[in-house]
Amino acid sequence: MASESQLIESIRKRFLSNRIKQVIKDGLRVGVGDDAAVLRPRSGSEWVITTDAFLENVHFLRKIHEPFTVGYKALSRATSDIAAMGARPRYFFLTLGLPEACTEKWFDGFTKGMVRAAREFGLVLAGGDTTKYPEVIITLTVLGELKRDRAILRSGAKPGDLLCVSGRLGVAELGLQVILHKTPNQKRWPGLVKKHLYPQPRLALGQWLGTHQCASSMIDTSDGLSTDLNHICKDSGVGARVWAEKIPAVHVPPELSALKLIPLDLALHGGEDYELLFTVPKKFSGRLPRKLGQVPVTVIGEITRERKVLLVGTDGQTRPLRPLGWDPFRKQT
Amino acid sequence: MASESQLIESIRKRFLSNRIKQVIKDGLRVGVGDDAAVLRPRSGSEWVITTDAFLENVHFLRKIHEPFTVGYKALSRATSDIAAMGARPRYFFLTLGLPEACTEKWFDGFTKGMVRAAREFGLVLAGGDTTKYPEVIITLTVLGELKRDRAILRSGAKPGDLLCVSGRLGVAELGLQVILHKTPNQKRWPGLVKKHLYPQPRLALGQWLGTHQCASSMIDTSDGLSTDLNHICKDSGVGARVWAEKIPAVHVPPELSALKLIPLDLALHGGEDYELLFTVPKKFSGRLPRKLGQVPVTVIGEITRERKVLLVGTDGQTRPLRPLGWDPFRKQT
Repeated sequence: MASESQLIESIRKRFLSNRIKQVIKDGLRVGVGDDAAVLRPRSGSEWVITTDAFLENVHFLRKIHEPFTVGYKALSRATSDIAAMGARPRYFFLTLGLPEACTEKWFDGFTKGMVRAAREFGLVLAGGDTTKYPEVIITLTVLGELKRDRAILRSGAKPGDLLCVSGRLGVAELGLQVILHKTPNQKRWPGLVKKHLYPQPRLALGQWLGTHQCASSMIDTSDGLSTDLNHICKDSGVGARVWAEKIPAVHVPPELSALKLIPLDLALHGGEDYELLFTVPKKFSGRLPRKLGQVPVTVIGEITRERKVLLVGTDGQTRPLRPLGWDPFRKQT
Repeated sequence: MASESQLIESIRKRFLSNRIKQVIKDGLRVGVGDDAAVLRPRSGSEWVITTDAFLENVHFLRKIHEPFTVGYKALSRATSDIAAMGARPRYFFLTLGLPEACTEKWFDGFTKGMVRAAREFGLVLAGGDTTKYPEVIITLTVLGELKRDRAILRSGAKPGDLLCVSGRLGVAELGLQVILHKTPNQKRWPGLVKKHLYPQPRLALGQWLGTHQCASSMIDTSDGLSTDLNHICKDSGVGARVWAEKIPAVHVPPELSALKLIPLDLALHGGEDYELLFTVPKKFSGRLPRKLGQVPVTVIGEITRERKVLLVGTDGQTRPLRPLGWDPFRKQT
């Protein structure tokens, strides 16, 4: 059984290894271990900061999700908010509540997954807090950096802007359903389960949009397209029209027909894809790449003056697109 | 039953009221409600950042602690780390897990307590995350600001430095014991219970020490003098000698004799006083005020080259001072 000091020391060693000198040069004057971290901002920069909770039995199940996955996904989710501002990830803080039974082997797998994610995303651990708790509770604070006035907010969409999304929607939700229904032969669909277990924040696309200043608003699809699009519309004081046939919905393999999943429903309301949903003024639409790296970008609709969020179905019928994505406080029906 | 969006909107309204313009002028370009907050640092400044978890049944009991107290104390504890760096508190982020039963009346009292604390400490809410959870779990991230190279770390103590502490030690622990033992007539000792319920981060003293640059190291006494002094000594590579008779220990009223509490033990190992423990090079000792505002400053020992932490008892005997303060992972004995 490790003491709190031992756990903190273990976290510090795993995350920093031999990079400390470089990190200090980069602006982290004091990291893990003091009362607080000390950071020196670069002149001309702004910082974006987000916090995100990842909780056992709410966001993950210890029986189903390996500790490596939990560590990776916790940091990935939080970092997606940095991508959604158009910023570059820099530092993070880990606040961890752990059962005694998780302080050794589980802790080892967890930190390995988080170290992997931190390296992939360019993040450095700067501090945190650990305490004993009956369940695993994780809170992450992530800091990103960008040039002044380059942050892409939810509130900048204008009537006439094109509505765009990265990647494919509903993939993570389908993966979750495959896992929850204990579908046999899960290994035949590694891509589906992978998206649920190891979501990829769209950092390159987010920073491309931030640098080229051609997105008027942006959000990440953490709660599902229908809910996240409603956030953009509400904060921008606009409406939207989405064309169902344009939505890059997940492909449901025929072998999974027993699950009775409708691809369009998964794409509209399924959570945790962590794709970028953004708007682009028409005059900039020519600049927009169809793909950035391996990630496709698709125009799925347009922003309207009338403050309604509408879905134009494949049958040509227009109906309201209600926010039916994830809300932790909505009563289950 | 409120939705997540309603809770966030309620939090935003309560904390910001009509101060938004001033806050934006001060450097918070985007606050609560987007994917992340956007902050513009002042040139020549450094930022200190801390995170702190405050959890039901670990750090507080919902049956005993009123929601107003929980909100106030959660922010106060986290802000104490900012005081311990010598910095000025600026922004905070609230991550909140709430049972459904706590989203209305309890939530109302909680936010009132936290709003009170934020106003007293000069903090502005900049973001956060809310989710449903079976118990109340609170994680705070607090940002403070100071001039470059002014942060007072744990690692700067040198042999010969004086060891100093603010306020009176063991007061919060005595208050906790009074509450836990359901001592009758608690209202006769409002001061004792008050320190446990409403700890005061020593912001004025911390900033005075940061500005006047006369402290070589500092920590706040969150876990108890014995444990926190060991942190300073370990991080500075030094030892310390503490004189028991100099320690400003709590006065235990004779009416509480049934609790069999020893004032020196409370002062050495009792947690949650949130006083400042700091070291001062002898050449600066003349600058040190005996009081700052209502808060006394007491010299209780000295830093030694030999790496041992020792207590010189009132009997003149010297013995090791072991870190017996709060450690959430230590087995209860």
